[in-house]
Amino acid sequence: MLGAGASLSRLLRRYPPQFLQKRLLRGGRLRVREALSAQPQGCDVRVQGWVRSVRSQKEVLFLDINDGTSLQNLQVVADPKLESRDLCFGSSVDVQGKLVKSHHRKQNVELQAEDIRVVGSCDSIAFPFKLKERHAADYVRQFPHLRCKTNRFSSLLRIRSEATAAIHSYFQDNGYVHIHTPVISSNDCEGAGELFQVETPSKPSEPGGNSHFFDVPAFLTVSGQLHLEVVAGAFSRVFTFGPTFRAENSQSRRHLAEFYMVEAEISFTESIQDIMQEMENLFKVATAAILSRCHEDVELFHKYVAPGHKDKLDHMLKNKFVIMSYSEAIEVLKKAPEVFSFKPEVAAVDLLVPEVGELYGGSLREERLHILQSRLDRLGLLDTYQWYLELRQFGTVPHGGFGMGFERYLQCILGVDNIKDVIPFPRFSHSCLL
Amino acid sequence: MLGAGASLSRLLRRYPPQFLQKRLLRGGRLRVREALSAQPQGCDVRVQGWVRSVRSQKEVLFLDINDGTSLQNLQVVADPKLESRDLCFGSSVDVQGKLVKSHHRKQNVELQAEDIRVVGSCDSIAFPFKLKERHAADYVRQFPHLRCKTNRFSSLLRIRSEATAAIHSYFQDNGYVHIHTPVISSNDCEGAGELFQVETPSKPSEPGGNSHFFDVPAFLTVSGQLHLEVVAGAFSRVFTFGPTFRAENSQSRRHLAEFYMVEAEISFTESIQDIMQEMENLFKVATAAILSRCHEDVELFHKYVAPGHKDKLDHMLKNKFVIMSYSEAIEVLKKAPEVFSFKPEVAAVDLLVPEVGELYGGSLREERLHILQSRLDRLGLLDTYQWYLELRQFGTVPHGGFGMGFERYLQCILGVDNIKDVIPFPRFSHSCLL
Repeated sequence: MLGAGASLSRLLRRYPPQFLQKRLLRGGRLRVREALSAQPQGCDVRVQGWVRSVRSQKEVLFLDINDGTSLQNLQVVADPKLESRDLCFGSSVDVQGKLVKSHHRKQNVELQAEDIRVVGSCDSIAFPFKLKERHAADYVRQFPHLRCKTNRFSSLLRIRSEATAAIHSYFQDNGYVHIHTPVISSNDCEGAGELFQVETPSKPSEPGGNSHFFDVPAFLTVSGQLHLEVVAGAFSRVFTFGPTFRAENSQSRRHLAEFYMVEAEISFTESIQDIMQEMENLFKVATAAILSRCHEDVELFHKYVAPGHKDKLDHMLKNKFVIMSYSEAIEVLKKAPEVFSFKPEVAAVDLLVPEVGELYGGSLREERLHILQSRLDRLGLLDTYQWYLELRQFGTVPHGGFGMGFERYLQCILGVDNIKDVIPFPRFSHSCLL
Repeated sequence: MLGAGASLSRLLRRYPPQFLQKRLLRGGRLRVREALSAQPQGCDVRVQGWVRSVRSQKEVLFLDINDGTSLQNLQVVADPKLESRDLCFGSSVDVQGKLVKSHHRKQNVELQAEDIRVVGSCDSIAFPFKLKERHAADYVRQFPHLRCKTNRFSSLLRIRSEATAAIHSYFQDNGYVHIHTPVISSNDCEGAGELFQVETPSKPSEPGGNSHFFDVPAFLTVSGQLHLEVVAGAFSRVFTFGPTFRAENSQSRRHLAEFYMVEAEISFTESIQDIMQEMENLFKVATAAILSRCHEDVELFHKYVAPGHKDKLDHMLKNKFVIMSYSEAIEVLKKAPEVFSFKPEVAAVDLLVPEVGELYGGSLREERLHILQSRLDRLGLLDTYQWYLELRQFGTVPHGGFGMGFERYLQCILGVDNIKDVIPFPRFSHSCLL
């Protein structure tokens, strides 16, 4: 846990003092994160959230409340007569009172309640999570509609949100244009078989004929690469960050049917080294931003979920990524589980991370028209990919790019073992809950 | 067009002077946008891009080159002996030379070429776009793999990228947590029929039995609302920004099968006025950011695509959005095409914009357990939506939210008539190109 001072300085970046002041002057509602960072002067405030703990003593009632804006709770101190039967772990409350300096070592402020209204009660018998119990990840995963109410998963969601923002910022700051590549596609970019098909549900009453909604078979995208290559014909740097799909019949801790990919394409590049440098920069800059913005949340993972992982991550961040051939990589990975390494082959590269596996894949693209032509001809795909050939006829440039699995990235920085625990609503073989 | 001074100050926000200086000292590559904003001192630079015009005179050769970083081109001045047969509109080039102050009124700098290498030639007979011709939108749309090479569409892509960033920033600055709601879902949130089904392609060789990949029928999402409601059970403010789908059998200028939605959900809100205020704030803050960051690109639309639209947009930005009943709205919309208005009904609201139609929809959600129970019971959906009912059993709170169609938003600020012209790769009935 950070001290209140450090927490305050981080918060004030987001909530400037004038803003807090205005809210306080209006006697208005404060979010928990705002309250924790305020200079308490006995102002009248109103805070709403969910009860994370209740301790009823003879003379005083303590509540911890949380509204998702911070891992840290706001302590509420009240007269025991404000207690009610519905005031329990999991219930939602609306508290009015005065924000004052706390005498406790662990917190800067506390809320002296004048009124506590239970907004929504919580059936504590049926509620799957219990006060002060640390539930196993396998257990929590069974409740996709409720797991955001646990500390661990709410931290994960805040980190995921900040990681998304950090990745967007990295690309923006480096002159990339963001492109929404399509989810529905008539291509199969990777040539693999694991595709989901998209169709309107069959309507038996309709007469026969062409039954495809798009006239052609359509699939969920497995990569935005080809579409980024289109745009890389007019932009020097482009990226996409969106959902991709594999109909892989696996329920393993490594696979999802729907996951997120960060993909970038760079024009006028003739060197795989440039691509590797960009992959390394993205990893390091985004991770540094997350560590600085979500310190407490990341710490929860490094302390309780994957002890020892922090050292591995620090090692990755401090050292230049290692470049080695495929056979070297295999040997090293066998021996030293903490090594982080690029594996370049001809003009392609993978970034391998122990425990997570392939985090990035990158390559220079084939831009020579006659080679593409003869390959597509052999595959019988000349007509289908005529548009792709045309990209090489009208001002083609050497280009290359990479893709990074976003969930694997989160696993890699947090030390989370199961990919289903780093995405809000996991979809995989035999499971599409909610 | 902005003057070079204004352009420079905007650019330096993104590329600080030290950064440019480092690049220049290295004699390194500059992007067009960087070159345009540099203080030219005769440094050796290298710029790569696509040729937007060639003017060959007896004593001097002029090129305009563009690399997608800016609407404005960089002028290259060269000895006519550097001209080659392949140097034409659409070809890609790598130019080395000195960056110097330009004597032309319209530009700050120009590049005195010492070497011009054609990287990729352009078959100008086959190339669908011609130098100095302004092509109709209907024509350009036929070339989804090449249209990013036109001024208009490259401006659109830059604006779309900045709009995406501006929307993310708005939510981040206002304490929202970003949630990736799933694309594949077993729900039909809006209860409408226009769904795409997702399945693995049928494999006739496999034996019968349960053929669903997810065990249950799965669909492409029509809204992230229900999933945001899940997370709103632990977070005071959440949002999502991703693809949504409708299998609508329409090729009209208003409909896409795949489009983007911005959706937000706010906990502890009991007033539709709060939701409306948030909708209005998002619109105004994001639009102001786009107008400031993409001034030239937006100006292209307001000047050449939708003359007169700028005044309508200014009117929207300067005035409080009008709130009126459904019948009032109909009357006003009939009479005054430029009015921008909310249409609240009971606890729901639409934001209607002339020419675009429904831009936003918002509502307070039903949080009373017994009412939801009896409704779901009547529909025979009690089992399917048990999880949704449970959200109301464990610390429920009054909440509400809204959704904004991102493409309609872009149409609304730019004055673009056809929704297919504001998305990189449009998908609609009978069409899934690339």
